[in-house]
Amino acid sequence: MPARKLSEIGEFGLIGRIRDLFPAPEGVEGIGDDCAVLPQHSGRDTLVSTDLLIEGTHFLREDIPPYRLGWKSAAVNISDIAAMGGKPVATFLSVALPADLDASWMDEFLRGYADISGRFGVALLGGDTTASPDRICINVAVLGECPSGTARLRSHAQAGDRICVTGPLGDSAAGLKAILGGVERDADVQALIDRHYLPLPRVAEGLQLAATPGVHAMMDISDGIGSDLGHILEASGCGARIDVAALPLSPALQRVCARQGWDAAALAIGGGEDYELLFTCTPEAEKALAVPHTVIGTITAGTAIEWLGAGRSFHGFDHFR
Amino acid sequence: MPARKLSEIGEFGLIGRIRDLFPAPEGVEGIGDDCAVLPQHSGRDTLVSTDLLIEGTHFLREDIPPYRLGWKSAAVNISDIAAMGGKPVATFLSVALPADLDASWMDEFLRGYADISGRFGVALLGGDTTASPDRICINVAVLGECPSGTARLRSHAQAGDRICVTGPLGDSAAGLKAILGGVERDADVQALIDRHYLPLPRVAEGLQLAATPGVHAMMDISDGIGSDLGHILEASGCGARIDVAALPLSPALQRVCARQGWDAAALAIGGGEDYELLFTCTPEAEKALAVPHTVIGTITAGTAIEWLGAGRSFHGFDHFR
Repeated sequence: MPARKLSEIGEFGLIGRIRDLFPAPEGVEGIGDDCAVLPQHSGRDTLVSTDLLIEGTHFLREDIPPYRLGWKSAAVNISDIAAMGGKPVATFLSVALPADLDASWMDEFLRGYADISGRFGVALLGGDTTASPDRICINVAVLGECPSGTARLRSHAQAGDRICVTGPLGDSAAGLKAILGGVERDADVQALIDRHYLPLPRVAEGLQLAATPGVHAMMDISDGIGSDLGHILEASGCGARIDVAALPLSPALQRVCARQGWDAAALAIGGGEDYELLFTCTPEAEKALAVPHTVIGTITAGTAIEWLGAGRSFHGFDHFR
Repeated sequence: MPARKLSEIGEFGLIGRIRDLFPAPEGVEGIGDDCAVLPQHSGRDTLVSTDLLIEGTHFLREDIPPYRLGWKSAAVNISDIAAMGGKPVATFLSVALPADLDASWMDEFLRGYADISGRFGVALLGGDTTASPDRICINVAVLGECPSGTARLRSHAQAGDRICVTGPLGDSAAGLKAILGGVERDADVQALIDRHYLPLPRVAEGLQLAATPGVHAMMDISDGIGSDLGHILEASGCGARIDVAALPLSPALQRVCARQGWDAAALAIGGGEDYELLFTCTPEAEKALAVPHTVIGTITAGTAIEWLGAGRSFHGFDHFR
């Protein structure tokens, strides 16, 4: 049998292998959601998630100011706690840095990391600092908590649920496209770039949604809803019908797309890193929701995503393909 | 002011900056020990630690079989929980892998990771998988727990305490030296190399020590006691007197050092990655200890380490220098 490369197996193939090898103990949610959920035996559950960022894969040193990278490194992890409806408590920061890096780079990184952490009352309680031969590597692990059994899992969607998002989609992907394409930075373009670099995790929204009966599955949008919604459907054994015309697009995105000839719907569906919450709930719960949101479709008893009004299908992001 | 490089500030300078920027909340042990300690409000404390391994800094792909790297990645983190006297519960594995890596490499890595995890009953509950442009990067975060207030901190040493270790020192450093120097692998050399690649965290010993009154400070030996003991002394505001002749050396280490002309004491003191426990306790507690151990010195009211019988001083390892 010829040796298979990771690029043939793909990210989700690799995760499947890991899952098979490490079954979660009874009563614990392990691999496959935004966070693991561990009972504390005290009326609370501990939530844990971790994210690895590699220079050259996730960011280019010359393109992202260190303050923004620090912000984003903490933000995407805090967002994983928000995605479960939990309260973020603490992060643990591992960094591998080239020895010839300016100390001011790290100072700025830490300032951004501290600013967003402070905003959400999250402590930095540990980590690891080490040398790297060349590329900067950053890993953040985050701990959060929620009342026992209230974490909103990807597997909780039910046929008939409304599918909702907490805010506009596609801004972050358009911001990245503008950076990479060297688009001139007027106020609209800058707003999109800020959404890419300085995401605001939906912690308060997640807590409110997790406290609402009838809110079922929840996750944050990191790879684009084309991919992320697929995870909810796979975990829940459902399908979905999405009304492409209902996808919330910010005015800035619409204006920039019109000017640049970009496909706003494709950015909203296939582009990642919006860090809005994607959730499903009963139609009754949806009507009573206090959290600002947009209904974008319905969970079906099928197995696939129907994109109404699109005339084509969409795909998300796989790290090895 | 000219820009300062990380190499001028050093690893512990960088950690100091992070500590200043992120003070730990009341009742929580944050940066500066083997683990953070968070109260669970249920008679238990949560312990957390994380470790980042970078190809080219911590390992060479052609030198370490993937099974052993997987084993070691989990082992060094489980050892951080042992170092607090806690029970390891779960790990979270982040890996960045080049897309052209053979899938069998990762399978072997996971097999080693699973073998040591299973040995200590530790679940793998999550993580992150992503692409790397070239180098393999591995981050493990580990969660453990202990009864409230029983975690053994570095800051707990008291003048008059005996300084003890749970097993022989220097084997791992000698194993690495043998690998890098291409020393012929007889049984002794192979035993040292196995100690380097397949460390066994002292979990049972840590749990027993943490349940023993009179056992004060504790940590695991990762950078060598020259450096690690310094951390206990700094955190506790004490000094130490070490009897170099008392350092436990394995028969294999003594034989290989005699043959190769290597300095066994220097390896035992300056070489890291033994993952034995280094702890301090009252003389009365020491006499009654059921855990196998060797007394290597005494905590003093001073501020430095005196190396009795050495005629020189020793230094540990700093990642940026």
